[in-house]
Amino acid sequence: MGKKVVVIGGVACGGKAAARLRRLDPEAEILVLEKGPYLSYAGCGLPYYVGGVVEEYRDLMCTPAGVVRDANFFRKVKKVDVLTRHMATSIDRQTRTVTALDLETQQEKTFPYDNLVIATGSSPIRPPLPGIDLDKVFTLWTLDDALAMRAAVDGGSVKRAVIVGGGLIGIEVVEALVSRGIAVDVVDLLDRPLPNMIDEEFGSRLVKIMAQKGVTFYGGEKVLEIAGEGSRIKAVRTDRRELPADMVLLAVGVRANTQLAVDAGLEIGPSKGIVVDEAMRTSDPAIFAGGDCVEVRHHLTGEKVRQPMGSSANREGRVIADNIAGRSSTFGGVLGTAIMRFFDYTVGRTGLNEDAARAKGFDPVTMTVTAADIPHFMPGAAWMVIKLVADRKTGRLLGGQFFGPGVVDKRLDALVSAITGGQTVDDLADTDLAYAPPYATALDPLTQAANALRNKMEGLMESYSPGEFVRRAQSGEPYLLLDVRMASEIGVQGKLPFESQVNIPLGALWERAGELPRDREIIAFCKISLRGWDAVSILQGHGFERISVLEGGVIGWPYELTR
Amino acid sequence: MGKKVVVIGGVACGGKAAARLRRLDPEAEILVLEKGPYLSYAGCGLPYYVGGVVEEYRDLMCTPAGVVRDANFFRKVKKVDVLTRHMATSIDRQTRTVTALDLETQQEKTFPYDNLVIATGSSPIRPPLPGIDLDKVFTLWTLDDALAMRAAVDGGSVKRAVIVGGGLIGIEVVEALVSRGIAVDVVDLLDRPLPNMIDEEFGSRLVKIMAQKGVTFYGGEKVLEIAGEGSRIKAVRTDRRELPADMVLLAVGVRANTQLAVDAGLEIGPSKGIVVDEAMRTSDPAIFAGGDCVEVRHHLTGEKVRQPMGSSANREGRVIADNIAGRSSTFGGVLGTAIMRFFDYTVGRTGLNEDAARAKGFDPVTMTVTAADIPHFMPGAAWMVIKLVADRKTGRLLGGQFFGPGVVDKRLDALVSAITGGQTVDDLADTDLAYAPPYATALDPLTQAANALRNKMEGLMESYSPGEFVRRAQSGEPYLLLDVRMASEIGVQGKLPFESQVNIPLGALWERAGELPRDREIIAFCKISLRGWDAVSILQGHGFERISVLEGGVIGWPYELTR
Repeated sequence: MGKKVVVIGGVACGGKAAARLRRLDPEAEILVLEKGPYLSYAGCGLPYYVGGVVEEYRDLMCTPAGVVRDANFFRKVKKVDVLTRHMATSIDRQTRTVTALDLETQQEKTFPYDNLVIATGSSPIRPPLPGIDLDKVFTLWTLDDALAMRAAVDGGSVKRAVIVGGGLIGIEVVEALVSRGIAVDVVDLLDRPLPNMIDEEFGSRLVKIMAQKGVTFYGGEKVLEIAGEGSRIKAVRTDRRELPADMVLLAVGVRANTQLAVDAGLEIGPSKGIVVDEAMRTSDPAIFAGGDCVEVRHHLTGEKVRQPMGSSANREGRVIADNIAGRSSTFGGVLGTAIMRFFDYTVGRTGLNEDAARAKGFDPVTMTVTAADIPHFMPGAAWMVIKLVADRKTGRLLGGQFFGPGVVDKRLDALVSAITGGQTVDDLADTDLAYAPPYATALDPLTQAANALRNKMEGLMESYSPGEFVRRAQSGEPYLLLDVRMASEIGVQGKLPFESQVNIPLGALWERAGELPRDREIIAFCKISLRGWDAVSILQGHGFERISVLEGGVIGWPYELTR
Repeated sequence: MGKKVVVIGGVACGGKAAARLRRLDPEAEILVLEKGPYLSYAGCGLPYYVGGVVEEYRDLMCTPAGVVRDANFFRKVKKVDVLTRHMATSIDRQTRTVTALDLETQQEKTFPYDNLVIATGSSPIRPPLPGIDLDKVFTLWTLDDALAMRAAVDGGSVKRAVIVGGGLIGIEVVEALVSRGIAVDVVDLLDRPLPNMIDEEFGSRLVKIMAQKGVTFYGGEKVLEIAGEGSRIKAVRTDRRELPADMVLLAVGVRANTQLAVDAGLEIGPSKGIVVDEAMRTSDPAIFAGGDCVEVRHHLTGEKVRQPMGSSANREGRVIADNIAGRSSTFGGVLGTAIMRFFDYTVGRTGLNEDAARAKGFDPVTMTVTAADIPHFMPGAAWMVIKLVADRKTGRLLGGQFFGPGVVDKRLDALVSAITGGQTVDDLADTDLAYAPPYATALDPLTQAANALRNKMEGLMESYSPGEFVRRAQSGEPYLLLDVRMASEIGVQGKLPFESQVNIPLGALWERAGELPRDREIIAFCKISLRGWDAVSILQGHGFERISVLEGGVIGWPYELTR
């Protein structure tokens, strides 16, 4: 007889652990208990199902060959037994048994285990708001959630939606709903979207694009009530206004499903996830856990964090199976990598943003650059803003944030690899990235960002990130913005909204430098601030001493521009 | 008075070194001598100009802001003096002077230097073929080359072109010419395209796609003559056939322009590039060199190699300027990263391919996987083939090759970063790459490849790369191919061209396993061989012992399929 392994949860980590274990141990008796009706579906695809990009929900549950991963599939192909609609209700660590409730028959059943895998996932938080039980108040976490939301959208009666919460899911659903012709507002308690992922400047860039798409982000507002008439939503009432709505999405975060583990006396960590070691083993050596319900090590800080992502859940499931089968295998950790499409823009991040790096005791130095993804002479070239964060003392890469219509995901993944390898800014600048005009510029945007950061760290360049410049402008200390663009560009690209600025095109700067004052700092910029940096060089040649650059230029400016 | 710096060559490395040096040293007197009429143009963009993707050649010489980088630009913006049409003819290291010929006036001029930068680039090899001086026999290396070739194509009289040489440039031009309605043949002495970059299997994949585009690759043929009538080309005659043509592109490789350095007594390395140290300093400490004319260190082998790429040339120029300005800065090396678009396909590579790894004394282990770039439920999902190469003993990543219509460049760059950091297959599998459905699968194709390679290295999976399988099939040892696809797929995807095979869909395999022979190895596959691997697991459960997988499946099969 083989080892008895019970897996609680059959979506991402649980399904992976079961399938992998079968390969490693043909003798094991593997049973998956899944409380829902569906197995191994792509949770991250749900917003695309709601938006109609994915037409059939079945596709979210299929293998690439088009076979639905149901209990029959697991039995026939993976030789894994699965009971859906079975909710595990308790774990008895003494007798090594799990009790589950059959949601069809309401019968309790008990299953013995030699090893147990807890992959219970997480659940969306439903804040106790008045009106939360009205029709068409949704969360979007399970396939059932998505089916309900899609049905409401397909019904055609939804004209206005309010999304409560400006996190990843909330923002992803904006695109889905707008693309279906629904007017959308977003409300968040915090003053900007994705506050845990990206710095204020990147949040502002996102808000600016939301506005262009007709979506208003109401930051720093507290939702007080979902007002209704009968069972129908009429409006969302905040502490500042009333937003008419006939659909509401609650996307204020998720909590790890740890009750089973808590009741069984397993250790829970400070981030409220189940504590596991590198082998994904809980405080009970017979019990493993993975996926959204655990906390894992952050590569850079060593702290335990929760990262509810399908990607890490899959990698964790593999490690669990290895260890149950007696193979030593470890889960190295996470970097908080995340990426999101927003219409024709991408937002991506990894590692520590500037705020987080400071909070974790690093002395961060940052560089914001605007660069094109491929050479400007190739059709389809598009810009992106990259903000690199490094440790000032060691030069070690700490993180990066990315935004723009350009190809961002590639640079993000290359940076993820570099951070994982403990590389420095110098290493990154010296990386032999792939170059050909359809794919990159001769110096890739990532290389450019690393080089610019090196210049700053070596004291070659004084510069301000947009946020730093705003604070500089507010300080009262006099300055002059020097716009070195050609006049023809300014009308097209817009102007920075500051009084104290002059425009001298770069080509005329050598001759006209005498027009500039010497009693204050001059801060140069252009479309992307590459010419801004040339301007510094020219003014240095004229003996100017206090000259700096506004990082990222007009294209990288996160806030409003004027005409 | 500032330091006198003369830079020979103003295209990639030279232009970068001059511009960077100006920033670092406002006092330096910097002079660039460029033999051609153009500066700092994007050489890698030339095929796209010939093909009309880039409409104006001026765009190849512009800054992103649309200003042509001519001598005036360098003077006004960079404060760098440039003499175009000045060909350096000799270096006198004793007196520290460079003599150059003014190609307009035919006058010789002598320029003193404190530091000299040799960035003379490389030149295309023109083999001494009969007929080489006929009209419309081109090389494609300089902007003038591209202008001539584009004019010929625009003229409309070119109906058939023969490209001699199946390297990067030859293959890039195939697309350019075919897109202009020209019939193209490619001839190469070697039996496959890109032999120094990719293994035979990847060359075969490329040849297969060429054939689909109506282009024949004549491998292993020697061009004997370009036959003409008057000044016009009639045909290219090889040792096997005559190919009608009215245009010929010679793309048989480039050689480093080292004559100046040789004459000056500077050390030349085994790869026939100028020898430089990590600071890009030649055997004369006052003289630096960079770009196509030098040899640089290969990250993995430590050997000196030539890598004629605009990307490394730019990085080298920066290092040169740093060192001339007294800043210690080093060029870490190259990985031979290269990428190429071929119609809707991409070919990419970095590090060592399998052949090269073996030749360099490694014991390579490889894994070929076929995977989709984004989830199959998202519109636009497309496949790619990845071949990872690692060192069997240490697990260290040695290289990767990529092919397909899927998004390949992203995975390539992430692998470049990982190899640069000295990472292992385990590290790569454990990297927190960005996941969201518009960008990647939950387990990225790169992660899948790393996991599959781990399985192989840990002895969990026996498998054959396509090339290994061909040799296995030819060995005479009996085997049986087990196709576990559904019958409906086979007609669409095609069949492997081997007699000894059966089809049992995966879903029926458990029941029908008894039909399979036990006296020979069974080699399972499917569309991409993911189900092939499931089949192994099922047959192991039936007590079969000799079961393996054909890596990459039918989609990854590099050779012809049958129906």
